[in-house]
Amino acid sequence: MIDATTSIAGPKESTGPLGHYFDKNLNDDLLGQKSYEILESKLHASAVLLLLNKTNLKPSEIDLCIGGDLNNELYATNFAMRELNIPFLGVYAACASYGLSIIIGANFIESNHVQRVICSTSSHFSTAERQFRFPLELGTPRAPQSQWTTTGAGAMLLNTLKGNIRIESATIGKVVDFGVKDVNDMGAAMAPAAFSTLSAHLSALNRNPSYYDLILTGDLGKRGADLLKLLAKKNNLKIDGKIYSDCGVLIFNTTNDSMGQGGSGTACATLVFNGYIYKKLLDKSYRRVLLITTGALLSKTSSLQNQTIPAISHAIAFERI
Amino acid sequence: MIDATTSIAGPKESTGPLGHYFDKNLNDDLLGQKSYEILESKLHASAVLLLLNKTNLKPSEIDLCIGGDLNNELYATNFAMRELNIPFLGVYAACASYGLSIIIGANFIESNHVQRVICSTSSHFSTAERQFRFPLELGTPRAPQSQWTTTGAGAMLLNTLKGNIRIESATIGKVVDFGVKDVNDMGAAMAPAAFSTLSAHLSALNRNPSYYDLILTGDLGKRGADLLKLLAKKNNLKIDGKIYSDCGVLIFNTTNDSMGQGGSGTACATLVFNGYIYKKLLDKSYRRVLLITTGALLSKTSSLQNQTIPAISHAIAFERI
Repeated sequence: MIDATTSIAGPKESTGPLGHYFDKNLNDDLLGQKSYEILESKLHASAVLLLLNKTNLKPSEIDLCIGGDLNNELYATNFAMRELNIPFLGVYAACASYGLSIIIGANFIESNHVQRVICSTSSHFSTAERQFRFPLELGTPRAPQSQWTTTGAGAMLLNTLKGNIRIESATIGKVVDFGVKDVNDMGAAMAPAAFSTLSAHLSALNRNPSYYDLILTGDLGKRGADLLKLLAKKNNLKIDGKIYSDCGVLIFNTTNDSMGQGGSGTACATLVFNGYIYKKLLDKSYRRVLLITTGALLSKTSSLQNQTIPAISHAIAFERI
Repeated sequence: MIDATTSIAGPKESTGPLGHYFDKNLNDDLLGQKSYEILESKLHASAVLLLLNKTNLKPSEIDLCIGGDLNNELYATNFAMRELNIPFLGVYAACASYGLSIIIGANFIESNHVQRVICSTSSHFSTAERQFRFPLELGTPRAPQSQWTTTGAGAMLLNTLKGNIRIESATIGKVVDFGVKDVNDMGAAMAPAAFSTLSAHLSALNRNPSYYDLILTGDLGKRGADLLKLLAKKNNLKIDGKIYSDCGVLIFNTTNDSMGQGGSGTACATLVFNGYIYKKLLDKSYRRVLLITTGALLSKTSSLQNQTIPAISHAIAFERI
């Protein structure tokens, strides 16, 4: 069960439509640190420490941490974990890393080896732009199909003994490649992976989309969400605007052109779920939510080598008990 | 239980002391591909396909793949998984990724959600040197404390129903940072992490080192292995040359100065375990082996930002039934 969650949001995320739902709002995205990577690492550690604080637990009472971020070699997460002295598993599924962490965490809980697991992720606009596209100093114009990498960090405490929201089921995705090569168009690269996991999930459990009060993709953005709806329609799955939404669309005001198709980044699904959806599950607005985290598996090396962009998507069904 | 393993070794690894133990020996490390990354990705896929071939299984009969490599964003593993159409979990613990994959895989088996899991890793000298240190074209002289990143790939099939070697226990490591900054000296960065996990493992299970027929670290190299022995001695743990060895020392002829301190890379522990130790467990030379995989969690960005090198180590106890 989910015992507690935390969400620390960057300046843009804090002034977006969900700003007041987050635990902490930052007014600066460097906060006096020497690099954006070091700042992201500190944010990541802060999200975990805030969770310990909220739940009145010591690091020694946590059996396991699982997490990741977008930086090469999980720079932010690994450096954050130095400060925690808790056994740690690092994972990478790009922006789907939060879903991946929760699935592995829930499985460790189920095997009865652990009682308390923390899942955490982070991302930062400035570390991601430099790493996957161009250094910000170049002033490269933003493409209309692009998304804005979310700055923030969040953590979730899974607890065998405590909580009102349980992880009811999950579907691990396959790597899907539809041949997209545009490093600005993550939504198009990820939508087929989201569809693959959504349809595998529904068919494995013999469910209709309407089984859920909400189906929420991680960070497809406006255009990617439209592509997912199109793929679903072509395959006779009905996911209309009433039960389907996307964290990337929810986190920013996407009528503002400068935000492109909306948010992306590992922190996007983490902030929206931890800050907003989790509270909506607790206050009984929703009973069953399917979170489909989505990740584009490109690297700067693969892009420069003119490779297409594979993607993956991991889904988790949350249910109020 | 371990149903089967595969090992595909690069040219240097194939002419080393364990060369004849590997399933496949390559005589070239590019094999006509356009880049070393694409070659590594093909090697990774080949190791999994060879495993399916050995066990006469179809991809649809595998429930889950878990794996990783050293490339940014798991380039080799993610691109290999495109060809397999099997649910996939990506992990990153640098050269400790094989241990990490096996621990998560064994846990999924234990929770009874899956029957067959494949764990796979790869690494390549030329992709790793470019990414973590310098492009080979620069001709940078090798430092005497450096290790040689292993070229190769391997995979292991965990099966609920079949096999003679079981995963008896495991210890997930913590991120440890002893302040090493030299990107050539991975052994010194990783030895404290290996000691942390070894002592946590022995104390959690109330065992002495002599409980095992063999304690094998992943890729500390000659110097790192000496440091581990020193740390153990200072803490009254006796791991002498009789029961302790290191995959990095075993895979190359380390009396040859050009090989520095021996092998490293994610494939190092994978090749040595899959190709050599697994056979020694099967032929009853060993009954109980503790494999302590070791990973240095640096990135080029963290090194250029003058950060120290955190490390992690994950241990697995294998036992013949």
